[in-house]
Amino acid sequence: MANLNGTTSDLRATFLGVYSVLKSELLNDPAFEWTEGSRQWVDRMLDYNVPGGKLNRGLSVIDSYKLLKEGKDLTEDEVFLASALGWCIEWVEGFDSYTWEFQLQAYFLVLDDIMDNSHTRRGQPCWFRVPKVGMIAVNDGIMLRNHIPRILKNHFRGKPYYVDLLDLFNEVEFQTASGQMIDLITTIEGEKDLSKYSLPLHRRIVQYKTAYYSFYLPVACALLMAGENLDNHVNVKDVLIAMGIYFQVQDDYLDCFGEPEKIGKIGTDIEDFKCSWLVVKALELCSEEQKKILFEHYGKTDPADVAKIKALYNEINLQGAFAEFESKSYEKLTSSIEAHPSKAVQAVLKSFLGKIYKRQK
Amino acid sequence: MANLNGTTSDLRATFLGVYSVLKSELLNDPAFEWTEGSRQWVDRMLDYNVPGGKLNRGLSVIDSYKLLKEGKDLTEDEVFLASALGWCIEWVEGFDSYTWEFQLQAYFLVLDDIMDNSHTRRGQPCWFRVPKVGMIAVNDGIMLRNHIPRILKNHFRGKPYYVDLLDLFNEVEFQTASGQMIDLITTIEGEKDLSKYSLPLHRRIVQYKTAYYSFYLPVACALLMAGENLDNHVNVKDVLIAMGIYFQVQDDYLDCFGEPEKIGKIGTDIEDFKCSWLVVKALELCSEEQKKILFEHYGKTDPADVAKIKALYNEINLQGAFAEFESKSYEKLTSSIEAHPSKAVQAVLKSFLGKIYKRQK
Repeated sequence: MANLNGTTSDLRATFLGVYSVLKSELLNDPAFEWTEGSRQWVDRMLDYNVPGGKLNRGLSVIDSYKLLKEGKDLTEDEVFLASALGWCIEWVEGFDSYTWEFQLQAYFLVLDDIMDNSHTRRGQPCWFRVPKVGMIAVNDGIMLRNHIPRILKNHFRGKPYYVDLLDLFNEVEFQTASGQMIDLITTIEGEKDLSKYSLPLHRRIVQYKTAYYSFYLPVACALLMAGENLDNHVNVKDVLIAMGIYFQVQDDYLDCFGEPEKIGKIGTDIEDFKCSWLVVKALELCSEEQKKILFEHYGKTDPADVAKIKALYNEINLQGAFAEFESKSYEKLTSSIEAHPSKAVQAVLKSFLGKIYKRQK
Repeated sequence: MANLNGTTSDLRATFLGVYSVLKSELLNDPAFEWTEGSRQWVDRMLDYNVPGGKLNRGLSVIDSYKLLKEGKDLTEDEVFLASALGWCIEWVEGFDSYTWEFQLQAYFLVLDDIMDNSHTRRGQPCWFRVPKVGMIAVNDGIMLRNHIPRILKNHFRGKPYYVDLLDLFNEVEFQTASGQMIDLITTIEGEKDLSKYSLPLHRRIVQYKTAYYSFYLPVACALLMAGENLDNHVNVKDVLIAMGIYFQVQDDYLDCFGEPEKIGKIGTDIEDFKCSWLVVKALELCSEEQKKILFEHYGKTDPADVAKIKALYNEINLQGAFAEFESKSYEKLTSSIEAHPSKAVQAVLKSFLGKIYKRQK
């Protein structure tokens, strides 16, 4: 995820400090009789899988909560609680990408078709490839999933919005798992069948797999902390989901058309047979003749195949189609945001939009 | 698990009927946009993994709730709700044995040392060995885990004990995963090192991995439905955990000394290098000379090795040690139960104890 927040390094340091507190509580959770071995195991597993990312989702809870408070200084306690919720989202992210990569890894092992990029994450080997971790990795995923309600209980048990927090995380985790499921069924069961890919399928995967937890969840947490009832904020949810979809379409676009130096990687969506926005949009725009080229060359690792796909993308002016999608999305999002009765909520949504609109990385 | 309940086939039919209702709700959960493919997938996955067992844990919620109501007839609604909680426990069981077997399977695949008994469960091949399921299996496990809060929300959202139910399931699932973790660390990291096995480790694994969800969870659910505060029932928890440990020690005993016709399988704990009560008790009772025999022959598949272990078990009179453990457990449990101020709670606990004391299967 690109830089969603213009956060100071101060805030980042505070946020990382809260991680240490939360981890230490988990490693001493009185619901379990810890052994030295099990404590060390979980300690290492958490450091490996949770705090290494860009932390944008987590930090955006604090930012959003500040904006909802309309610039009033937050108390130390408020900063801690918003950070704890931010970390719960980072835990969801950790669990999510962890299990996703584990599944892909296992899948490619089965296919005997090992792809380099499924072996590393954030520049280090995936957790389950660390020597001796092996198959305890499945249980580690389960532990990550179970930590979220522990953190919530430790810090929010007495709050009036505690039950709403539990419901929120349960619902979003269910949605994320459901999104992963349709992606997996498409990717694995589909066995490289392009005719299964379509714009509605792409939208559905992106919405459930990513948008709920990356865009809606941070703001929903901030709203609950601010005493709001989420039932009154269905519009906010809709705007954030639309933003999450827009963000993922950008991701798909940058994978092919972005500058590798800026996005920090060389895109391989074409080689990987990804259900990318580009390919589903291309399927929509193509003539029958052009479709044949897509079917023949998409999902192959040979640079000659990849070049054919890119040439086709240029031929049908996919960049133009993306520019149109981008400006229409921006227009729609802006007018939805401005229709919102609360200036504070508007500020939260505009802050998200400002950080992603026309991003290059 | 042996027959914990003298339930009529009527109750069982009602209970299975509730499963159909819950499943249908999950397959139409409005939090997700279902496709035909994803609905079919989850439908098949649930039928495969959830309702095939003996259902004793689930049915015991209804039994316990009845006893707490001191014989008053339950309303249809009460039966439905107690059944729904029973099914949540069956879901925990399904998730738990599912992930456990998945991990063992993956582990043995890695070792290239495939053991027959990790390939089947309840007489059918494990879910992840069904063609085409393959590695979507990890996500399926996550879906199972996420269904429990969905069921709770669908049927208990308005109840005064809703938040306590969520906390209860979260805590017990955390404990179960923690128990699995120490078992896995011992089994896999230990790499057949008997010196890691001990009575306290055995007790800890059994208590966290099994006793909380199999014994405490059903009664805790019934207590919450009956309006009780679980903080006032720490003694009940202690009794049930002790019963769960006793139950698992019986299991370990029967694996070696039970009649295969009665227990329905031929035990292989010795071959499998299990951290069984028998081997940890033997380690305690052995002379240094006898210990050498244990270290040399435990965990080997050759019948001659197994015979040496069994001969040693007889030499040190493990059957006698078990009989002593059994009668002491019974005494302690009975006096704890009789010390409880409520006759209804006593009845619940006695019902559990009556079903497991001196069981042969």
